[in-house]
Amino acid sequence: MFESAEIGHHIGKKEYKRRESVLREALLHAQYELLGLAKFPVIILVNGVGGAGKGETVKLFNEWMDPRHIRTEAFGALANGEHGRPEMWRFWQVLPAKGHIGILFGSWYTEPIVAHVMGHEKATRFVQHLERIRQFERMLVAEGALLIKFWFHLSKAEARKRFKALESDPENAWRVTSHDWQRLKQYDSFVKVSEQALRKTSTGEAPWLVVDGSDPAYRSLTAGQYLLDALTQRLAGQQPSVVSAPPVPPPAIDGRTLLGTFDYHRTLAPKAYQHRLVTLQGRLNLLLRDPRMARRSLVLVFEGMDAAGKGSTIRRVTQALDARHYRVVPVAAPSEEERAQPYLWRFWRHVSHHGQTVLFDRSWYGRVLVERVEGLCAENDWMRAFDEINAFEEQLAESGAVVVKFWLAITLDEQLRRFKQRQATPYKNFKITDDDWRNRDKWPQYERAVGDMIDRTSTDVAPWHVVATNNKLFARIEVLAHLCERLEQAFAS
Amino acid sequence: MFESAEIGHHIGKKEYKRRESVLREALLHAQYELLGLAKFPVIILVNGVGGAGKGETVKLFNEWMDPRHIRTEAFGALANGEHGRPEMWRFWQVLPAKGHIGILFGSWYTEPIVAHVMGHEKATRFVQHLERIRQFERMLVAEGALLIKFWFHLSKAEARKRFKALESDPENAWRVTSHDWQRLKQYDSFVKVSEQALRKTSTGEAPWLVVDGSDPAYRSLTAGQYLLDALTQRLAGQQPSVVSAPPVPPPAIDGRTLLGTFDYHRTLAPKAYQHRLVTLQGRLNLLLRDPRMARRSLVLVFEGMDAAGKGSTIRRVTQALDARHYRVVPVAAPSEEERAQPYLWRFWRHVSHHGQTVLFDRSWYGRVLVERVEGLCAENDWMRAFDEINAFEEQLAESGAVVVKFWLAITLDEQLRRFKQRQATPYKNFKITDDDWRNRDKWPQYERAVGDMIDRTSTDVAPWHVVATNNKLFARIEVLAHLCERLEQAFAS
Repeated sequence: MFESAEIGHHIGKKEYKRRESVLREALLHAQYELLGLAKFPVIILVNGVGGAGKGETVKLFNEWMDPRHIRTEAFGALANGEHGRPEMWRFWQVLPAKGHIGILFGSWYTEPIVAHVMGHEKATRFVQHLERIRQFERMLVAEGALLIKFWFHLSKAEARKRFKALESDPENAWRVTSHDWQRLKQYDSFVKVSEQALRKTSTGEAPWLVVDGSDPAYRSLTAGQYLLDALTQRLAGQQPSVVSAPPVPPPAIDGRTLLGTFDYHRTLAPKAYQHRLVTLQGRLNLLLRDPRMARRSLVLVFEGMDAAGKGSTIRRVTQALDARHYRVVPVAAPSEEERAQPYLWRFWRHVSHHGQTVLFDRSWYGRVLVERVEGLCAENDWMRAFDEINAFEEQLAESGAVVVKFWLAITLDEQLRRFKQRQATPYKNFKITDDDWRNRDKWPQYERAVGDMIDRTSTDVAPWHVVATNNKLFARIEVLAHLCERLEQAFAS
Repeated sequence: MFESAEIGHHIGKKEYKRRESVLREALLHAQYELLGLAKFPVIILVNGVGGAGKGETVKLFNEWMDPRHIRTEAFGALANGEHGRPEMWRFWQVLPAKGHIGILFGSWYTEPIVAHVMGHEKATRFVQHLERIRQFERMLVAEGALLIKFWFHLSKAEARKRFKALESDPENAWRVTSHDWQRLKQYDSFVKVSEQALRKTSTGEAPWLVVDGSDPAYRSLTAGQYLLDALTQRLAGQQPSVVSAPPVPPPAIDGRTLLGTFDYHRTLAPKAYQHRLVTLQGRLNLLLRDPRMARRSLVLVFEGMDAAGKGSTIRRVTQALDARHYRVVPVAAPSEEERAQPYLWRFWRHVSHHGQTVLFDRSWYGRVLVERVEGLCAENDWMRAFDEINAFEEQLAESGAVVVKFWLAITLDEQLRRFKQRQATPYKNFKITDDDWRNRDKWPQYERAVGDMIDRTSTDVAPWHVVATNNKLFARIEVLAHLCERLEQAFAS
């Protein structure tokens, strides 16, 4: 959920000034139109990590627009005296009327997240809480409200840096409270719980926008532009279409992507490779013969651009396995029988029993990669696939499967080098087709699709592992090592 | 959920024969059209209470249609050896392909319901289970499946009767297993858990149809007709509109309704009334001064047709209350300020704090009664109101409120008598308007709306209590007695 918000975004001062003046004028204009029409209220939720600029953004919104028609309310966790009425009561009291804007700083998310992080609320209650919120927001949208949910994010390192900077600045030191430092200590569990909350409540009618809070200029423009777009769209009469899946957020305004900022250039010398390969294959083999595998299965997913080395990497894994207990499933276009069934049906067929390993050479992620980019399925179909895939993998994990997903990442240049090499090698040139060359033109679209995929399907139970594979030797070792680690973790839990 | 299925439905032999022959021909025709088109699969879930005719209905479906294109599969709770793969795996294996019909006898509901009733699965896990099912069914519908969910119901008395009848019939005795008798012992918890499951999974895209299973003719025609209507609608190209709320089921084919079968004629003699009134008012007063009220509040809802005696009954309650701690909220048309807010906003304003009592003279149920019948709001708005109201009352209950809801039930004749009396009484004739007379014409529509309301909003935490009020004295005592009981229950829990 937060992967793309941690790559570091930035907007220069000049560009900020230029874009800000356009933005604020448009926002003010939209606000007056909203007020004149008085057809629907706008509810803006501002949540996120401490120090990520929530307060500054709220302040900006009030400066950019006419604050007389904005009601800003801050909410923290429930105080002791506030338990005499239902929890949602305090929010009902401050809902903006049609034509008005309400900014809820903290909102209905703070109490459940904080209570769960602090251990005051068990997982059950937390899940019920989220279900209730979903229902409440569905009602707000059905009643006509435009609901905009911002989550301001900072990586742990950024959060610490920001606190220190504020503290050392005499004018700002008061902003950092001991509460913030305490929160920072709980950063990991706070982010983990928040991620669960965001995932469960990012619905088609009320999606979250995660904003990287580290650069004030980037943060402010991103939030402002998103608000403006949502407002003008709605004012233009485009009804909120209640789609079954949350829309994919717009691309970052500074153009930076997860894969675009990845370090592809890690290498490994052949000698070190040979040594580590043998060691790791032995370790993997032992792990899979562990008695604990009797209640476990192993599901491996290999995805990557063409020529990223999926096949050769898979072979290095299977070399370590007992042939009676594994299967490699190469995934291509679906058969006629498979097309007469729901999308995931053809993967459910291959779900492994306890004790078995299945290796998917390409997988169910085809829907959100090639099918999305090539327009092979309707937008709504690949959008709902994110949730369906998460549910599928969650079920796999629950039944005892260890689900390990690799994205083998190469650069465009390295792919070109390999394509040329394949063409020059007689027994390899069957591997390269016109399609492969055409796909290269769509590299940026694929990069964006991969970024969204990782943001949306890297879950606790089935995280993605992005492997630099410009150097194949490095990639193979990385895959084997990660695999062993995940198995050891699973056995230990 | 099951209220309307317990009033006893019946279809005569002759009518059954006549309708059956028409129905089976149409069903067979629709099945072949489905097969020819091969555009979508039909998935029929058959669940319900033991002895309610699930097996017979499945048999009939296979007789009425061409069984070669129907795949019937039965599912019970998970056996010991079936835990090596994710639980949903076995259902994925039998999903019907496009053009085909799959009947899932038991389906994905049996395991979670039975496991929860037997205490093998805690409430948490049960709720997660239901959430997963909702997600799974949403996917099926998004993939094009026509999903039809039948729940066959029997009241406890009917279930017992049916078992005994089967047992004493030598040809059918084998059908009743010791397992069934054991299940009957757990009838109450089975029905309670099932009700929760049905409520949480009756979604807009895949609603449940609850069928009274006591009369075979009624049951078979109801199920067959519903299947036929769903099929022909879908074949005619009407896409499954994913609405936010489950549609209201069609009226019973024998025309019987909850209010139509209610016993209105219970009375109380004036002398007994006086004595009981004083006793009950005293009991109520004491209860409300109990120290346990410090963590409780009381929310009373009075609904009923015009002249059912809401005002006079409310006065008999308030006579027992301390004026500092209660408020009567008469509900009429919403103000301008209230219209600029979501529907429930004007009731949230009056939510009481611990220690207080609020009496609503008419209430949020206006949306599913007068607004529905008079067409004052869009269909989708009153349909989603059922869920929103349940969520609202659940939150009230959670915050400590005891929510008690009365439907004061009078007959059309008695209403007429009271209207005439009012017109003849000078200080009362302001109470009667042209609207009141007009509403009498819509009596059947109101009766149906009340039936749906009780089926859908009589929950564990806030059940409806229907009070016969043709005799006002009886009604007042019934209300006070029920109120005291509910408070005592709440204090004891």
